[in-house]
Formats: sequence, C-alpha cells, structure tokens
Amino acid sequence: MAVVTFLSDYGLGDDFVGVCHGVIARIAPQVRVIDVTHGIARHDVRSGAIVLRRALPFMPAGVHLAVVDPEVGAQRRAVALRCAEDERLLVGPDNGLLTAAAERFGGVVEAVDVGRSPLRLEPVSASFHGRDVFAPVAAQLAAGTSLAQAGEPLDPAELMALDLHRARLTADGLLAHVLQADGYGNIVLDVEHAQVAGSGLRLGRAVTVNGERGLYATTFADVPAGGLLLYEDGYRTLALAVNRGSALAALGLDIDDEVLIAPDAQS
Amino acid sequence: MAVVTFLSDYGLGDDFVGVCHGVIARIAPQVRVIDVTHGIARHDVRSGAIVLRRALPFMPAGVHLAVVDPEVGAQRRAVALRCAEDERLLVGPDNGLLTAAAERFGGVVEAVDVGRSPLRLEPVSASFHGRDVFAPVAAQLAAGTSLAQAGEPLDPAELMALDLHRARLTADGLLAHVLQADGYGNIVLDVEHAQVAGSGLRLGRAVTVNGERGLYATTFADVPAGGLLLYEDGYRTLALAVNRGSALAALGLDIDDEVLIAPDAQS
Amino acid sequence: MAVVTFLSDYGLGDDFVGVCHGVIARIAPQVRVIDVTHGIARHDVRSGAIVLRRALPFMPAGVHLAVVDPEVGAQRRAVALRCAEDERLLVGPDNGLLTAAAERFGGVVEAVDVGRSPLRLEPVSASFHGRDVFAPVAAQLAAGTSLAQAGEPLDPAELMALDLHRARLTADGLLAHVLQADGYGNIVLDVEHAQVAGSGLRLGRAVTVNGERGLYATTFADVPAGGLLLYEDGYRTLALAVNRGSALAALGLDIDDEVLIAPDAQS
Repeated sequence: MAVVTFLSDYGLGDDFVGVCHGVIARIAPQVRVIDVTHGIARHDVRSGAIVLRRALPFMPAGVHLAVVDPEVGAQRRAVALRCAEDERLLVGPDNGLLTAAAERFGGVVEAVDVGRSPLRLEPVSASFHGRDVFAPVAAQLAAGTSLAQAGEPLDPAELMALDLHRARLTADGLLAHVLQADGYGNIVLDVEHAQVAGSGLRLGRAVTVNGERGLYATTFADVPAGGLLLYEDGYRTLALAVNRGSALAALGLDIDDEVLIAPDAQS
Repeated sequence: MAVVTFLSDYGLGDDFVGVCHGVIARIAPQVRVIDVTHGIARHDVRSGAIVLRRALPFMPAGVHLAVVDPEVGAQRRAVALRCAEDERLLVGPDNGLLTAAAERFGGVVEAVDVGRSPLRLEPVSASFHGRDVFAPVAAQLAAGTSLAQAGEPLDPAELMALDLHRARLTADGLLAHVLQADGYGNIVLDVEHAQVAGSGLRLGRAVTVNGERGLYATTFADVPAGGLLLYEDGYRTLALAVNRGSALAALGLDIDDEVLIAPDAQS
Repeated sequence: MAVVTFLSDYGLGDDFVGVCHGVIARIAPQVRVIDVTHGIARHDVRSGAIVLRRALPFMPAGVHLAVVDPEVGAQRRAVALRCAEDERLLVGPDNGLLTAAAERFGGVVEAVDVGRSPLRLEPVSASFHGRDVFAPVAAQLAAGTSLAQAGEPLDPAELMALDLHRARLTADGLLAHVLQADGYGNIVLDVEHAQVAGSGLRLGRAVTVNGERGLYATTFADVPAGGLLLYEDGYRTLALAVNRGSALAALGLDIDDEVLIAPDAQS
C-alpha cells in the first residue's frame, strides 16, 4: 500500500490537517496517510527539519509531505525531491525543511519546482498551499505520477539548506547547542553518536552542564527524580533531561543556547 | 472505499474521539475515517457549522459525521440527512450544525430522525450520543444501510438553521462581523467572494479596519511582519490577518464583533 | 482487517505517536491503527489504566498497545498478554496499566516478558520503548506472530495490579473517590453500576456532594446551566458534572479526593 507521511505546523485545533487528508483521499483513495506530527511550533522551519530528519527512517518508504511555510505566497519555491536511497520522495516548501531529511537518504538526486504544477488544485489560494499545492502533488506521486509530470526540473544544488550550529570540543569541554526540545522539556543537543564517542565523556560519570551537576547515564532511572541526566536519546543524539521534570526549565535554556559539557572535576 | 468524515468538539485529550473510531470500525471494518478536526470550541455549534461547511467540499463524498451537541440528552433531535448533490450524507444533532454544510450540496432532500434508530448501541447513554447514536448510524450508512432504515422520516423544512449576521454596505464602508478565528488568530469575516467583488475594495490599496490601517492584499508576504492584512482566504472568504502575528489579538476582537472596513482616505 | 489500538501519554505535540505508527506500518502494512487517545497525563499510569479499561469494549478485538511508562529503562517488565475472552491481546509496560483492562475480558491467561523480545528494533534506546519494543511487538502480533514467539513465558499471577480506592457505604452516605476527570471537568467516581443500584440513591432526587446540593439525574439537561449533577456516565459509572461547567473546579476536587454523597435531607 502506498504511503504519504505528513508533518506540519498546522496544529490540530483547526481543520487544516483534516482538509489535506481529504484532498489526498479524493485524489488517491487507496493511499494511506500517516501523521508524523502537526505540533511543530508555528513557522519553526528548523524544528520541523530536525523532527523530519529524525523520524523518517522509522517511516515506511513513500512520499513524505512536510509543510512549515512562513513564506507561503512569497517567492520561496515549492518542490518535490527524490532521494538517492530507499525510494523516498519529499514534498514541501524549499526553505530548508526537507534537505536535512534528504541527507539521511543519500541526498537529492532529482528535484522539480511544483509551484505551478499541473497537479495543483485550482484556484490556488494565497495562504493554504498545503491544501492546494503540496497535498495534491504528494497524493499524485503516491498514486504513481512521476516527478517529471509534477513540475519543472530544478538543479538540486539550488535547494536551500539549513544553517545549523555545530558542536565542537574546546579547552573547557564540549561546546554544544540546544537544537530542539520536546514537549517534556527534554533537550536535544547538536551532538550525534559519532561525536559523542570522540568527546571523552564516560558513561556513569558525573558531568557539569553549564555548571550544573548531572550524570552521563543510560536511562532516566539512573538518576533520582529531579536529577539531571545527559544521555544518548532514542535517536542516538546527545540529550539532556531531568527525571520526571523539565531540563529546559531547570537549566533555563532556549533554542540555540550554548551548552558547555565537561567532566565533573569533583567526581 | 467508503468514507466517514468526523468533526467534533471532543478534543483529543480524552478518549471520546478514539472510542467513536472504535465503534465505527466494529460496525464497518472496511470504512475509512477521516478526522476533519476535533478542535471546535466546546459547545460552539456555529463554529462547528462554519468549519464543516468550508471543509466538506475538500472531503471525499460519503457520510459526514459531526457532533457539537450542547443539548445532548435534551429534546433536540438527532438526524441523518441526504443532500441534493454529490451523494453526501450528514449525521449529527439537529441544532444548526449540519444545515449550513448541506446548502453547499444543494440542500437537504431527505431527512430522518435517528434519536431512536434501531442502529443505536444499547444501552444508550445520556451524555455520549456520539458513541451510542451518531457514530453507529454513520458507520451503518457508510456500509450501505439506507436512510429509511436508519430512522423515522422527517420533513427537511423542520430542520434547525443557524441565524448568522450578514455583512452589508453602509455609508461608512463595509460592515462585517467576526464569524470565526483559527488557531493563528486569523479572522474569518462574513463576506464571501461574490460580496467582496461588489464592495468596491481594490487589491493593493490601503484600508482601515475599525480605524486601524492595513492593506487589502493577496498574500501574507505583501505586508511586513506585524502588518495588518485584509485578504481572501483559502476558502475565498474575506479574512483579516497580521503577518506572523494574531489579528484577533491586534484588533481586540471577539466572535460576532462588528468590523468596519473602508478605503483609507489618506492613501 | 487486523487492528492495533494505541493509547499513550505521549501527547501529539511531538513525533512520538507518529513514529510508532510508522514502525507498525513498516512491520505490518495491512494492519489498521486506531488511536484511543494520547492525552493521558504524563506518567499517570492509573488514568491510563482506567481509560483503557473503559474504552476497550468499544474497540474491535485485536492487539491493544498502551504506553504510560514512567519507569522506562528501569527494572519494570515489558509484557504482552492474552485475555481469556474475545481474542484480546495487550502490549505494554507491566506497571498496572494493562491489568484493569484485562479483567474486562476475563483476565490474563497467557503472559510473556517482551523486554528482550527478538521482535524488538535494534539498537533499543533507553528511553523510547514505545518505538523500539512495544510497537514492533504489537505489530508482529497483529500480523499473526504468536505470543510464544514474542517473549519469555511469565506467570500471569506475577503481573502488577493497580491499588485503587474502593467506594463504600457509610453511616453518612456513600463514600466515593475521584477516580479520574475528563477534559470538561466531569468527574468519574469509583462507583460502578452494580454498586449504584445498592446505594439507595434515587433518580430525580436531590443529593449533597461534599455538602454541595445537586441532583441525581439522567442527563445534563435535567439541571440548569451551572447546576451540579450526579449521574451514571456513558460507561455506567457514577459521575459528577456541572451543566456547561466544570465539576472539578466547582467542587475544588483533585484525583483521589474523597466524595461523600448523601440524599439531601431538605428535599
């Protein structure tokens, strides 16, 4: 069964998500739609990109529709992309939302501009391209339409990429950044598995995080309730949590803030 | 594949929506359920009616289940309706929630009272007719049961209709009303495409909205961040927005409030 | 069509629920997933257990996945259970979440520990067993894998059960407890249909609820807006509501609080 996955910042309080489901079902009744999440903070392209990149490997191969689109109606391109690996297609605005995910599947090997796609719903509204452009294109691709029929060819090198901080080792420790936080206040840092291995951090040892004492541990249960925990999260990325609490609140952090992690000299 | 669409004010915090999905799946395992939204404000029949009317043209033809039901357990009727066009059936309380949507499909040509439908779940609870009356009736209709088998015939002329304000042209400008607001604070006015055309408003010109200056524009990007925008929304209805902000908050408006729109004399 | 139902405390703001849907779809593309709710309060095992117990009779028989798992990564077992009746399988943490629901289907007749199931996703993360353990096991069971292949046999008598208050008749009246509250502020008490029958309460008569006057009634419409109502809810359990208001707020109650219900001497 062909699958469309769907991520957006539409929320579930309005009918935006439902209407896109309806549009897809009208065009491709046999296609199954799986909602990744619609809880991306409004217009937060970067959070959307990170969640998409992390989630897609757990999704069936198919068409991955993603809409976080603060520039809707302006000059940003609308695109559909084919990844090098695993038969993955991505559909959404060309604002960096899709490219981080595409890297997980070998990068983009074919791209089309779907802003004037013959597959759009007419009349195209100025503000709801999810319904009028992206959902119909995604549905048609899932139903077997080729990328070439969906839009005008585009050089993949022209696609917008995200400009993200990069964690680095310093004399004082590992200097990372808050990449994202989930609804529990758990913080994702910009340190992936390979970089953790080279950081000198040792499991089970005390660390300081911006001066606060915590434990570099495996599971939440390794620290008492209220305890600060540095750990590799479910996506093998370094993360911060407070057992049964919010690390974001406890550490007073916000997106992009610096986080200095060092072995605790007193332990 | 037969489709039931589902709109309600149940929210997603409890199991009400999930249980209705379960009831439908038990009765009609092959039927697909598409959630329009369950984020209608509690007991806000009018918002539910407007969202339903706007969303249904984008949904596959089928059975459209809608439950915003402040008078559950009281004397209000429970009904199932057939529209004149496009094989659309509507199921829900007879409190105005369904009739505005039915007008989009040529009005109601057949109606039955399903309050004592043989298709109900027994025992029928006093407070959860979504589960016990509406969902089972919708599922059975989607599975092919006829309207006549679902309840007692009812004269469509007896159905309750909504009493909505109507925008009108005055000497001071176009006097409209706040019909609804979405989760972003974008405001839907009671002015549809045909009435916009006759209003004398000209695209690209400055307007005043209750004295505040804004632009009658095509897209959000036509105004700077924080700028007020009058535009035709994705449903071709006149709407107000603040680019990257909330028009509802910026204008201090609430549902039903009057909105006077006039060309800006200084432009 | 095989069905997996899914209840959790993950919320819908993040991608946790979506990723579990993806994992299930990758393993068992033909299986349908029905979300019971993901709005259980974070880590509130008891609320999860009560909602699950009440909702499952309305769900198609199948695999019932439930994840409210404050001890993830610690010593709590991960289990899959077969109920005596109706071909119901339950998958989740062994912390009391599943057993109350199992009682509705004749209790548990077969149990396996799936903590080291060969069906897990590798590498298993420390914090996201919903994705790595529970969802894959549920998907495989729905696709026809036997319980014996999913884990190590376990004596059902060793499963954790919930320790709940029990309402009782006292000289002053029926002493009940707040078992749960829904998003409307309606309160579920720990008094089921059989115990209501023996309580001496009579429909249509005034009662006092912690000294506040209310009506023991059938439907919300039996009291005016703002009126307090004692009633059997949609699950035939004694409940408290305020018509068009919140009983939780009006009575100043919280989970586990005592609620003394007595006939109103003045009526």
